[in-house]
Amino acid sequence: MNRMKVGVLGATGMVGQNYLSLLDNHPWFEVVYVAASPRSAGKTFAQAVAGRWLMARPIPEPVHDLIVADANDVTQAVGQCDLVFSAIESDKETIRRLEEAYAAADIPVVSNNSAHRATADVPMMVPEVNWEHAELIKDQRQQRGWTRGLIAVKPNCSVQSYVTPVYALKQAGYPVSAMIVSTMQAVSGAGYPGPSSYNMIDGIVPYIGGEEEKSEREPQRILGQRSNGQIIPDTSIKIAAHCNRVAVIDGHTACVSLKFADRKPCLDEVKAIWQSFVSEPQRLSLPSAPIPAMIYREEPDRPQPRLDRDAGKGMAVTLGRLRSCPVFDIRFVGLSHNTIRGAAGGAILMAELLKAKGYM
Amino acid sequence: MNRMKVGVLGATGMVGQNYLSLLDNHPWFEVVYVAASPRSAGKTFAQAVAGRWLMARPIPEPVHDLIVADANDVTQAVGQCDLVFSAIESDKETIRRLEEAYAAADIPVVSNNSAHRATADVPMMVPEVNWEHAELIKDQRQQRGWTRGLIAVKPNCSVQSYVTPVYALKQAGYPVSAMIVSTMQAVSGAGYPGPSSYNMIDGIVPYIGGEEEKSEREPQRILGQRSNGQIIPDTSIKIAAHCNRVAVIDGHTACVSLKFADRKPCLDEVKAIWQSFVSEPQRLSLPSAPIPAMIYREEPDRPQPRLDRDAGKGMAVTLGRLRSCPVFDIRFVGLSHNTIRGAAGGAILMAELLKAKGYM
Amino acid sequence: MNRMKVGVLGATGMVGQNYLSLLDNHPWFEVVYVAASPRSAGKTFAQAVAGRWLMARPIPEPVHDLIVADANDVTQAVGQCDLVFSAIESDKETIRRLEEAYAAADIPVVSNNSAHRATADVPMMVPEVNWEHAELIKDQRQQRGWTRGLIAVKPNCSVQSYVTPVYALKQAGYPVSAMIVSTMQAVSGAGYPGPSSYNMIDGIVPYIGGEEEKSEREPQRILGQRSNGQIIPDTSIKIAAHCNRVAVIDGHTACVSLKFADRKPCLDEVKAIWQSFVSEPQRLSLPSAPIPAMIYREEPDRPQPRLDRDAGKGMAVTLGRLRSCPVFDIRFVGLSHNTIRGAAGGAILMAELLKAKGYM
Amino acid sequence: MNRMKVGVLGATGMVGQNYLSLLDNHPWFEVVYVAASPRSAGKTFAQAVAGRWLMARPIPEPVHDLIVADANDVTQAVGQCDLVFSAIESDKETIRRLEEAYAAADIPVVSNNSAHRATADVPMMVPEVNWEHAELIKDQRQQRGWTRGLIAVKPNCSVQSYVTPVYALKQAGYPVSAMIVSTMQAVSGAGYPGPSSYNMIDGIVPYIGGEEEKSEREPQRILGQRSNGQIIPDTSIKIAAHCNRVAVIDGHTACVSLKFADRKPCLDEVKAIWQSFVSEPQRLSLPSAPIPAMIYREEPDRPQPRLDRDAGKGMAVTLGRLRSCPVFDIRFVGLSHNTIRGAAGGAILMAELLKAKGYM
Repeated sequence: MNRMKVGVLGATGMVGQNYLSLLDNHPWFEVVYVAASPRSAGKTFAQAVAGRWLMARPIPEPVHDLIVADANDVTQAVGQCDLVFSAIESDKETIRRLEEAYAAADIPVVSNNSAHRATADVPMMVPEVNWEHAELIKDQRQQRGWTRGLIAVKPNCSVQSYVTPVYALKQAGYPVSAMIVSTMQAVSGAGYPGPSSYNMIDGIVPYIGGEEEKSEREPQRILGQRSNGQIIPDTSIKIAAHCNRVAVIDGHTACVSLKFADRKPCLDEVKAIWQSFVSEPQRLSLPSAPIPAMIYREEPDRPQPRLDRDAGKGMAVTLGRLRSCPVFDIRFVGLSHNTIRGAAGGAILMAELLKAKGYM
Repeated sequence: MNRMKVGVLGATGMVGQNYLSLLDNHPWFEVVYVAASPRSAGKTFAQAVAGRWLMARPIPEPVHDLIVADANDVTQAVGQCDLVFSAIESDKETIRRLEEAYAAADIPVVSNNSAHRATADVPMMVPEVNWEHAELIKDQRQQRGWTRGLIAVKPNCSVQSYVTPVYALKQAGYPVSAMIVSTMQAVSGAGYPGPSSYNMIDGIVPYIGGEEEKSEREPQRILGQRSNGQIIPDTSIKIAAHCNRVAVIDGHTACVSLKFADRKPCLDEVKAIWQSFVSEPQRLSLPSAPIPAMIYREEPDRPQPRLDRDAGKGMAVTLGRLRSCPVFDIRFVGLSHNTIRGAAGGAILMAELLKAKGYM
Repeated sequence: MNRMKVGVLGATGMVGQNYLSLLDNHPWFEVVYVAASPRSAGKTFAQAVAGRWLMARPIPEPVHDLIVADANDVTQAVGQCDLVFSAIESDKETIRRLEEAYAAADIPVVSNNSAHRATADVPMMVPEVNWEHAELIKDQRQQRGWTRGLIAVKPNCSVQSYVTPVYALKQAGYPVSAMIVSTMQAVSGAGYPGPSSYNMIDGIVPYIGGEEEKSEREPQRILGQRSNGQIIPDTSIKIAAHCNRVAVIDGHTACVSLKFADRKPCLDEVKAIWQSFVSEPQRLSLPSAPIPAMIYREEPDRPQPRLDRDAGKGMAVTLGRLRSCPVFDIRFVGLSHNTIRGAAGGAILMAELLKAKGYM
Repeated sequence: MNRMKVGVLGATGMVGQNYLSLLDNHPWFEVVYVAASPRSAGKTFAQAVAGRWLMARPIPEPVHDLIVADANDVTQAVGQCDLVFSAIESDKETIRRLEEAYAAADIPVVSNNSAHRATADVPMMVPEVNWEHAELIKDQRQQRGWTRGLIAVKPNCSVQSYVTPVYALKQAGYPVSAMIVSTMQAVSGAGYPGPSSYNMIDGIVPYIGGEEEKSEREPQRILGQRSNGQIIPDTSIKIAAHCNRVAVIDGHTACVSLKFADRKPCLDEVKAIWQSFVSEPQRLSLPSAPIPAMIYREEPDRPQPRLDRDAGKGMAVTLGRLRSCPVFDIRFVGLSHNTIRGAAGGAILMAELLKAKGYM
């Protein structure tokens, strides 16, 4: 199979670098194009990130000497890219406009940004949960007059550690009506340089701007139903989120208390549901699909970020500490890798799904 | 006023060291006696803690050359101590027996241990909340045949950041019926050496053995009523706690969601209740009573452990981020210093109260 | 004694905040004036630092509601300030010009900046080491035509943990000819926000721009002699510095190997020299002078930043691990608090010296 | 090729776990045997490490259900193991005796322990530096009467980041006569649980027991010559080491100042020598040999532990910040992964060399 030619917009930032690392030697996608701000344009990629390449692995060979394009110049990408991953850093209005310009130019856009997460005809997907929302692309194309172009987005990194286990329970006949979640999120989630070490050494910051709103609203949309060219959020689940920044490099941890809408499974049943969970990405054997999708650790003190974040190459969700809740029904701890599953890796999996389903 | 002669049991451990630091130059109490395990007995205090003195300030002058006694030998303390603070580290049964032996020998015992927290006639106090539980000492003395002896204990360090604000609301006519709390607790709470740096650097541990049970049960007893020589816990408040260990030296942070039993105050009212809260220790001007007892920070990203734990010399509770809760009624972040307010300092404040009230 | 009226330039930055904290209730100095960038000018100090007050103690009462002046406007300070502490953040040329403008307006300037550290007629002082360099102010005034104005500066924070012990040895007849020093420096030394937590969690950064040059050059000037209106550096001591940033909030640690120029003291003699060291600030009983000036810890694993940085209220130098060196003669570990002794506290001690000596 | 059957002694400890992780799917070695203390003996390996498996990757499949043997019982290993890796934790005398017993039972022993590092006829090897010391095994076998058995050991983890670059210079005609090195060592080097988080959060510990002696003595032996059945250390190089523990999970960093014995290369020449360095493990294409053996980073702030420790799968040495030294001749920063290159990985590379050279 010929690999699709892909571009990465915002390639020099932390999420962009993650895309490039994860796409190195990808069986379906080949990075042929990198774009960033006008400041970087014209330099080789290696020059543009000199002293700011933050990944553990070196710059991938095929990207090292690519000339960085100006991300604002859509015309340059035309003919070169079959698909772009967007990690542009700018204001929401600019991002929205730019992503739509790429799509209008027949280039599918898979985006990491929050700009289009509330746009009615843009699917926001966790591939294991709402792969069927991909069908919204038909509505999108019809409404926008696009043929090959599309925009699909991934949700916020903070929701990955609880939305899949909650969905698995719903699918098994145990919908959740309320949940209170408290997160301990890694500093890499804030990009680079992100939080000051003066706050994070011997410290936590009990606040992340905008994060609680996203963590409460996005799962409702992900769990919602497509109807009349848009997604109707599932407002039958109420969510309260406390979001904290802690001194962890990668890996968001969530302490979750759940209340079921009606029937209540026993703890063993919950565990069995999670452990046997298989979804569309696994059935389609997508290259980035973790198998298993969720891991349950029996040790009392797991999951822990450093020890568990890399499970399933950073794409699995690791769960633990399932126990009954004195206030709601059950509670547990969930963990996922925020820059892999929660950012570039999640977007790549979504792109794989869209390709497998014939949307591009 | 002549200062009371006090002893510290378990003086060489981390909590014991905190006692000694906080009691240095105390206006009412004078440390004249230190006791520890037989291994340390017979050495000067300075020798006994050589290489293991963990406080920022040096060993207090009056304690430096005291000869360490064997904590198991109650007779040695008789005649020397008007009061002992207990920070003995042993199994619960041994601690219970030993603390009772001191009390039976006419020496009041103010304890930091969890051993007697569920004993029916032993008051477990947060002086701002349940100072009236001190009256249980009358029952205790009658039932046990003690005249001067007594046992009073302080609760677990994890509850200090939410039990006082919840009590203040109850007093103001807004009792709480349910709360879900997620804590991020400092490593000093586990004593020394405590958690391995291998787990805590770039890591969190989402489990502290026994801590969630204490965090859920103890507030019910603290908020309970004295009746027939014991405390009837207030089981009308349901609590679920998620306890986590994070890479912080001192200061436990709690993310709290609250549901009110009936009437619901508005956010401004809650804030006003907390900011105007004054209780018995403040009214009595006890030496260790923080004024104010609770501090509300308006900044969006406070309280933070390193910046706020020392408020009120480590005895105040700092609150912030009060906002409405999409699942319950309100939510907020609370912080208190675990080795001061949550351990030695809290016990000293309790001893001050008992003295001011004439129990010793 | 009437307290001198002092102003703090650059009052809203981290060093400025340290000045304000340390000057609160100072017996000789009273902060009556705060100045910062035009952006902050016109606000109350509390408004200007809202959300950016980084000290553990709250904003000092007397400063809370002062209106922030524009630091560029020297005329405003005239008549209000008997002295200014400068912690201006700008380019060197601007700082130099501005500090000279204050001095020319009859306001003594005690500065934390590096801008004037190489200026021939400006004394750079560690008061315990080269208090006699204060006499350079006579030359300075004569050459510049100033009467009351003066400029005096403190050296870089990295040198405080080794320049005093080296000086003490020199005074005792054991001049050092070569030293290799490797520092592990706290993040607060870089100001706020300073190093990214992404680099500092599970990490060290083996580089601090310009720091090694300062660490090698400044001690030669501090140990130099006044001659013809300038300081002749002591180039008989060769220094090589490796400067590293580590995950520590406050406190710079230095591992030092020393070679003596001729006579070599035995280890006990070195220790005795350090422990008995008393210098001019101690003899004059300056308010901020630590007594003792240097502390030697016998434990094998001290000094440690968190446990020892606050010795002498953050003004003492703590030493340990003295042992012979297989390559040079002796080696040891030194520690000092970088934002107190190494910044605002060191400058305040210098101002106290200048006042006690009649220079202002 | 049939893989050699190997056993791991001390398999449940941190170094043992590293062996098992690194040996998973090794092309030449197959783990068939794990041994530990009597306490673990009889359990499956998974049971024996339950709650204490500290590697990021899960327990390797082939090891998961192996029954743990008693490491003291040499007879059990006979016939099962063609080779054992020793990571036994005990006193030196016991380790020495035990390792000799295995060797006497015809089982080659490749050891991570310090017990035999000073034994005259035991080679201590960094394969890139002193592969020729393997010939000492001939003397060893002759003197001890062993035929298939042998003992070979690896040096301390702290020396890996500077002994290879120093050797490369020596080979190129620039022997070093003196060096002063200051290390910042990761907590994993102390095993598990290792340093308390109470010391390491916002802290460094400027002392590691015995480490400086090893860091100064072992390089002399590694750089020494074989003569009359033993190694004559190269005492022409004087070394002083300052060893510090810092808040880093993996990766030891060293700040090194070097003085050359006679001729002095220019900086470009030094860099070229390091970058072109190829040695026996690379020439033999040993499976664990990193290519290149040493990496030079041009960025001013590298190497950094988290970003560079995994270079060459954790087996490469990363260098940076080469510059002239005002006291000696040159200085630089070196970094190597202490639990891979500095422990299990270094020992595996040594075993590969011994196999390739026909010693087993």
